[in-house]
Amino acid sequence: MNIYDVSKKAGVSIATVSRVLNGNPNVSDKTRTRVLDIMDELGYTPNVFARGLGLGTIQTIGIMCSDSSDPYLAHAIYYLERELRANHYDSILCCTGNSLENKRLYFDLLRSKKVDAIILAGSKFIEPRAKDNAYITEASSELPIMLVNGYLEGDNIYSTLCDDRSATHQAVSQLISSGCRRILYLFTSYSYSGTNKMKGYRDALLGHGLSIQEEYIQNCEKDVLAARDLLLHLHQSGLQFDAVLTSDDTLAVGAVKYAHAAGRSIPDDLSIVGYNNSIYSICTDPEITSIDSKVEALCTTTVRTLMGVFNGGNVPTRTTIAADLIKRATTKF
Amino acid sequence: MNIYDVSKKAGVSIATVSRVLNGNPNVSDKTRTRVLDIMDELGYTPNVFARGLGLGTIQTIGIMCSDSSDPYLAHAIYYLERELRANHYDSILCCTGNSLENKRLYFDLLRSKKVDAIILAGSKFIEPRAKDNAYITEASSELPIMLVNGYLEGDNIYSTLCDDRSATHQAVSQLISSGCRRILYLFTSYSYSGTNKMKGYRDALLGHGLSIQEEYIQNCEKDVLAARDLLLHLHQSGLQFDAVLTSDDTLAVGAVKYAHAAGRSIPDDLSIVGYNNSIYSICTDPEITSIDSKVEALCTTTVRTLMGVFNGGNVPTRTTIAADLIKRATTKF
Repeated sequence: MNIYDVSKKAGVSIATVSRVLNGNPNVSDKTRTRVLDIMDELGYTPNVFARGLGLGTIQTIGIMCSDSSDPYLAHAIYYLERELRANHYDSILCCTGNSLENKRLYFDLLRSKKVDAIILAGSKFIEPRAKDNAYITEASSELPIMLVNGYLEGDNIYSTLCDDRSATHQAVSQLISSGCRRILYLFTSYSYSGTNKMKGYRDALLGHGLSIQEEYIQNCEKDVLAARDLLLHLHQSGLQFDAVLTSDDTLAVGAVKYAHAAGRSIPDDLSIVGYNNSIYSICTDPEITSIDSKVEALCTTTVRTLMGVFNGGNVPTRTTIAADLIKRATTKF
Repeated sequence: MNIYDVSKKAGVSIATVSRVLNGNPNVSDKTRTRVLDIMDELGYTPNVFARGLGLGTIQTIGIMCSDSSDPYLAHAIYYLERELRANHYDSILCCTGNSLENKRLYFDLLRSKKVDAIILAGSKFIEPRAKDNAYITEASSELPIMLVNGYLEGDNIYSTLCDDRSATHQAVSQLISSGCRRILYLFTSYSYSGTNKMKGYRDALLGHGLSIQEEYIQNCEKDVLAARDLLLHLHQSGLQFDAVLTSDDTLAVGAVKYAHAAGRSIPDDLSIVGYNNSIYSICTDPEITSIDSKVEALCTTTVRTLMGVFNGGNVPTRTTIAADLIKRATTKF
């Protein structure tokens, strides 16, 4: 007997049941009475849901990530696990890889373990086609789904997002202000986060009266040498560019290596901007200007939101955190 | 009722009970009879222990690591989780930090969850003083303890090790053969692995008739810029060195940055060798010669050994895997 049974039987959302439990005034009297009646009928004890009591819960959160050896996701797991532990929750980690089939299998596995919630770390879990996300939406009627830098609309689905769009917009604007006009954008993924970064790039160009040329937008594997080789290839094929904006620091490292190989001077002849402000950004000479996507803040906020859900609070379904532009030696600004 | 109760009551090791269960001939008739009698007396069903049945077990392994955002450990977690999953085991991850007190707290927490085994990932869990490891040894009478690149003697404790000593010995020998005589060693830790790397360095110098000078052995924080600054400081204080061997790629990246800052030519004037063959080793120009410490092989072997223990097999308590020296552009060999 739990909050989901009450929600189902009362024909209202879990958030509404939470609000009733929490004495939140944003519920009509009619609904409140109905929910309380159902609770009474089902013999539901709100305490079961209270944090820390551990009654009817295994105090364990499932964490899914596509690849824990990716530095961004490795940090995300670290911060999520630390914050969950501080709240007396265990975590079961699943590294899913990128295929939708495996993601679904792991998701179902976690559900079968009766975890108290599932955290999807990274923006790779939300597919472009709505029907491919139906398994997540359906599960959310039974347990909270937390998305770290991903977004999916739905009751009992909570997103904590980095404002990637504003971040790339700001970076491109600064590149333009410092004299760059032919800004190449290297990106790794069409994920929610990837799409937003792209929008920021496009918006900034248009906002400064520059045109968007599709050959300046290049998809690249998340790999240092692949990025270097792609840039060498574009260079040799005659494409002119005076800046490289990337969706990941590894690509920016590749851009520095391209500049060294092609004999281009950084930042006078070529500016470079990375993403994530990872250790990679300080491995090269010159060190790389990078967008700090605030992975720690995203993860701690995700866990705090989840604890709010467990406590029956009225928590936001979408929280956005601003990124920072960390200026180093690969840009003139 | 489990194999540990049988072991305790019979006054024999768990390995011996495993051997009896497995029909292994390396058990005396007297002991075999005694163990089988105790099993009978206690009503022990060997099937409970059989893999995959999940009877009397939660099919969950505790993984402890000091810091999942460390790239080496992040990869270790990835490979451990993947291999456990392939064997139908879940994992509960704990990131402990470096204090002994917290390590003990997390260890006890995992035991209270009745996990089927605990994997200690990385060599930071074994302390120099035996009494500080007593909590591990004591726990091993109740569940298998698996060490990834750490070593502790004890029944039901299994170590999978990289041959770090031979690896640094080989690297130093090759540096000497290529003309280096003043080889600085930068290391991060006095762990089991750290101690073995040090031994390899010392043995190789002595084996080539070179003396060991303590000012050529420097402890350094695992941080790119800390390594760069330490080398700049040593350089400015007049220490002459023609090679830098490091216990971690991040320090080797710092060494490349030092060389750039000090205007030293790599590898003609300065050779550099990293450790772990991580992505860091290809981020710099020139790219870094590095010792591949075989983290994937270590982790898959650890899990396979554990499955052998669960199956009652006669498994080795210590398995050593050879490292590889990956030659790139920071050395003359």
